[in-house]
Amino acid sequence: MNIERINAAAIRLSGKARRTPLLSSPFLDEVAGKRILIKAECLQHTGSFKFRGAWSALSAMHPAMRARGVIAFSSGNHAQGIALAASRHGTTSVIIMPSDAPELKVNNTKALGAEVVLYDRATEDRDEIGERLAAERNLTLVKPFDEPEVIAGQGSTGLEIAAQAANIGVTSAQVLVPCGGGGLTSGIALALAAKAPALKVHPVEPAGFDDVARSLKSGRRETNAATTGSICDAIITPTAGQLTFPHMKRLCGAGIVVSDDDCLRAMADAFTRLKIVLEPGGAAALAAALYHSNSLESDTIICVASGGNVDADVFRDALQKYGK
Amino acid sequence: MNIERINAAAIRLSGKARRTPLLSSPFLDEVAGKRILIKAECLQHTGSFKFRGAWSALSAMHPAMRARGVIAFSSGNHAQGIALAASRHGTTSVIIMPSDAPELKVNNTKALGAEVVLYDRATEDRDEIGERLAAERNLTLVKPFDEPEVIAGQGSTGLEIAAQAANIGVTSAQVLVPCGGGGLTSGIALALAAKAPALKVHPVEPAGFDDVARSLKSGRRETNAATTGSICDAIITPTAGQLTFPHMKRLCGAGIVVSDDDCLRAMADAFTRLKIVLEPGGAAALAAALYHSNSLESDTIICVASGGNVDADVFRDALQKYGK
Repeated sequence: MNIERINAAAIRLSGKARRTPLLSSPFLDEVAGKRILIKAECLQHTGSFKFRGAWSALSAMHPAMRARGVIAFSSGNHAQGIALAASRHGTTSVIIMPSDAPELKVNNTKALGAEVVLYDRATEDRDEIGERLAAERNLTLVKPFDEPEVIAGQGSTGLEIAAQAANIGVTSAQVLVPCGGGGLTSGIALALAAKAPALKVHPVEPAGFDDVARSLKSGRRETNAATTGSICDAIITPTAGQLTFPHMKRLCGAGIVVSDDDCLRAMADAFTRLKIVLEPGGAAALAAALYHSNSLESDTIICVASGGNVDADVFRDALQKYGK
Repeated sequence: MNIERINAAAIRLSGKARRTPLLSSPFLDEVAGKRILIKAECLQHTGSFKFRGAWSALSAMHPAMRARGVIAFSSGNHAQGIALAASRHGTTSVIIMPSDAPELKVNNTKALGAEVVLYDRATEDRDEIGERLAAERNLTLVKPFDEPEVIAGQGSTGLEIAAQAANIGVTSAQVLVPCGGGGLTSGIALALAAKAPALKVHPVEPAGFDDVARSLKSGRRETNAATTGSICDAIITPTAGQLTFPHMKRLCGAGIVVSDDDCLRAMADAFTRLKIVLEPGGAAALAAALYHSNSLESDTIICVASGGNVDADVFRDALQKYGK
């Protein structure tokens, strides 16, 4: 993986993915005591950054292979990205989703044209199911993060951050990224290392699912003890990718851990101050910037707000608890 | 008022106001049976388009006059726009607000540095209060809509719509704009008449506060019977402006009327499908496009989502009623 591959993905994504805005609010700067900039990937097609990697992978695929259809496994955001990218490429998709995925994500994935297969997150191995179905139906598996063209697509977010930061005179900052398997985190880290090396990436994870923070400390891929138990459904991946971890190890600063409650509070603050809708996992980086800013040295923090696919009742709870 | 004045305002606003994105969702297209594009002005500084007009007016003012301070009357969005534009110009502002304005709007206006004076919407005349305070303290009154530089600033939204529509190949459409006093509606209509004449503007108002729709029919400025009684606090202005109405009469198509419930439903759909936060009045145009599309001839509808400054409990109600 190198910057040329990310640049090539960005060219394929041009006019297909949205160039999402970099938002800010004086009220959030005041909460953090720092300048806070928010890359609003919740405004991306399908409501999360995942559309970038999905489009990148499908657009890079050999047309004959793509025409036979693709398969993916995902808690929901990669699912929607693949479903839309497949239908816009005129092909079919099968998506393997955990049975406890938010209803909105399951319904949207179906509505975007995919066939959905549910599995039990606690007792079944999604990799095994995915590989078996792919073989049976001659489908091409598009992994959610451990796949070079997916990492390259997510890296296009980093190219935009570099350009948008430079445009407002920000040359040095910490960049916080909600981290599951590490596709977005490693993609952004690779892009920034090439384009804006003084923008330093830190992964952000929910408490109890901080495998990447622990892996960055130990130097080898650690695994989470639990597979369920956080509202941050998008980023509770058991362990970092084989491909993504070496990039993170080489390029990222220390991981940051936030609580589920921090994420609910950040969702409410994003509602009040930015007028954007974030899902719990998508709010993790903003939560770290707002409520854990003591641990951050930079005067400027760029947070990736990675997704907004949240059920209405979870959002209502966040507003009831922390809304103004 | 002419296009040169709007162009000049847009130059002063460059780098100060956000160029807000034009969003879309295949799910909303399906609801309406048409292509729906949403100009997300809720993502503007202070959470509504009003920052454009406020910045335009303050930046056009003689520096000595501006330094003495400004005064404005507003249900909340113009208030916040003026408060931020004033503090960023290094001057002071006094804002006269109705006592029933959403708490969030009152608090934000204060936090952005303004002095807030409350009045009773049913029994007091805000124009009279504004003019008296301006005279007593030697402040310059910036009216919320009936002021050329404010109309020119709001018109910059129309310049962006023209460019963004052209960029995706949209050359003909109906453009729906939530309408109170008509500053945004007339500004956009003037900009589009010059830059994209096949984009036709229609004002959208809440039922019972449809003075502009009736005025466009009768040919003269009509007034609403009531002054309170809609959740669309931003757009229940008693009558259109003396300056704004002639532009609307010359350039706009028929007005469209929506219910408060339509607006709550559009807020929930914008939450689910676009990941943006809209206030009731800010959702009026989207409501017209989604639930009254039978009355619209064009295949493509551009809706201005004019603001997102809504209290958390109103938003929770919208999600409880219509959320998915």
